[in-house]
Amino acid sequence: MKTVRVFAPASIANLGCGFDIMGLALDEVGDVLEMSVSEGDGLTIKNESGVPLPEDIEQNVITPVVRKFLEMTGNRAQVDVVIKRKIYPGSGIGSSSASSAAAAFGMNELFGCPLSEEDVVVCAMEGENLASGGYHADNAAPAVMGGIVLIRGYEPLDLIKLPVPGDFYCAVIHPKLVVSTKEARSILPKKVDMHAAIAQWGNVGGLVAGLYSGNIGLVGRSMRDSIAEPYRKSFIPGFDELREKVLESGSLAMNIAGSGPSVFALANRYEKAQRAGAIMEKHFSDLDIPYECYVVKVSNRGARLTAY
Amino acid sequence: MKTVRVFAPASIANLGCGFDIMGLALDEVGDVLEMSVSEGDGLTIKNESGVPLPEDIEQNVITPVVRKFLEMTGNRAQVDVVIKRKIYPGSGIGSSSASSAAAAFGMNELFGCPLSEEDVVVCAMEGENLASGGYHADNAAPAVMGGIVLIRGYEPLDLIKLPVPGDFYCAVIHPKLVVSTKEARSILPKKVDMHAAIAQWGNVGGLVAGLYSGNIGLVGRSMRDSIAEPYRKSFIPGFDELREKVLESGSLAMNIAGSGPSVFALANRYEKAQRAGAIMEKHFSDLDIPYECYVVKVSNRGARLTAY
Repeated sequence: MKTVRVFAPASIANLGCGFDIMGLALDEVGDVLEMSVSEGDGLTIKNESGVPLPEDIEQNVITPVVRKFLEMTGNRAQVDVVIKRKIYPGSGIGSSSASSAAAAFGMNELFGCPLSEEDVVVCAMEGENLASGGYHADNAAPAVMGGIVLIRGYEPLDLIKLPVPGDFYCAVIHPKLVVSTKEARSILPKKVDMHAAIAQWGNVGGLVAGLYSGNIGLVGRSMRDSIAEPYRKSFIPGFDELREKVLESGSLAMNIAGSGPSVFALANRYEKAQRAGAIMEKHFSDLDIPYECYVVKVSNRGARLTAY
Repeated sequence: MKTVRVFAPASIANLGCGFDIMGLALDEVGDVLEMSVSEGDGLTIKNESGVPLPEDIEQNVITPVVRKFLEMTGNRAQVDVVIKRKIYPGSGIGSSSASSAAAAFGMNELFGCPLSEEDVVVCAMEGENLASGGYHADNAAPAVMGGIVLIRGYEPLDLIKLPVPGDFYCAVIHPKLVVSTKEARSILPKKVDMHAAIAQWGNVGGLVAGLYSGNIGLVGRSMRDSIAEPYRKSFIPGFDELREKVLESGSLAMNIAGSGPSVFALANRYEKAQRAGAIMEKHFSDLDIPYECYVVKVSNRGARLTAY
């Protein structure tokens, strides 16, 4: 029997203008799995995280990920997984992706790394498909690869790791509002205004240019979503007022994380991200909405072996 | 009296996926103006280029550019312009922008460079407005600044000069078909399919990333326009077959230049661009459509003083 302990980070998809094509890994916050393989043919998943999860392993995102790995690599084995740490599902910071990425990365480690990083993402996307009915990579790719990942396209999958500025911090708050990904998707129109679309790809170009050139001001100016945010912000009480306060306090940008209801701010100093976090906490506290808030460095570290 | 001779390059707007937000300067091909200022208050434009242009100076793009410069800088003067070399209007390679950019750059030189490069673009955009009824920068900005320019947004104008790979060549052909910019614009829908829009901004991200990282393959993969090209290619007989041949011959991409009917190919070797040019020439020759074809290096040089 061989055992590994793996960590995969939480992540933020739909990075401002990067709706459906970009995601960012959050360091420190994430899932921890202990995974073992031995001779045989089966799968067990034990949840020691304290976070309620479905008992049926067919409902757990880890299951299709493990199966996909075995199928892709032509292996069979008894796989036993213990969930040690778990982000709350529905948080909007890639809870399912963190488990999926950890499972895919862990399997690859257990079998001597037969798969490329991109194929590890492909495995992790099986978990996304179970969770949301679609093969999305905007959380799964950063959760595996770390940093900021651009998904140029899906046919074929084309993942580009973008440079992360040296000083880049993120405050993210998960207000405990119930917004399903399905509901957040169905509110979006099937067709978008040409002008809004052009503004969006101008900003995507600006964001990528800002990340490569280390031009933090340009990154901030480009973090505008003309497509999804105008609709989805209606799920988040006081979104516009909150953003105004967060930007006034020195953050570069504030946007919806994934399909919401989490909200995140980016800043070029830790203190500014802390300030944004405090403003966001007060906002939801005043509204009597419970929340969880994290202030972390954006790093290049993705899924990895861990001792904890 | 003070005199300068200025060159401004032809340019290609709507760089593949960069519809309405990107343009590229072509070296060598362009307009040459001789401009003089003396005491007084007036404007003359003499056309020695051999290319037919309207006699009425109110119809010449140089006029609003010169006036805008004088207004922005608070000057008055007698300005005399001689058009020495001129790209054929309607070529789809930024004929009006080359004149506008040369005029704006020339005025700035004559008055000791009071305007920033961005403000020189603002002046040149007055010519674009006369030519096409809109303040576009996707030809004017590269014609002034050179290289590949991203227009992140217009309010305020946000121009980002993107890095040009060391070996980057362009073949561009102007088939003498009559397609007005107005007609090419009116064929486009006011709303676009969400999936096509997402594909477009994924590609914009990929193109910018490819240019910064010098990943020529990524540049090529990203040069896909899901928005305008599917409509506008109907103006260009045999567009799909032509592209297939050009790509088979080793070019990275082939797309419509501006609103057409010109077509351009990008390549990472001069010989490949020459091959693309030859294929494009044969294509239009076989169709009995007259053309002009250029094969040039994509360079960082924009408007400049010249001896010729």
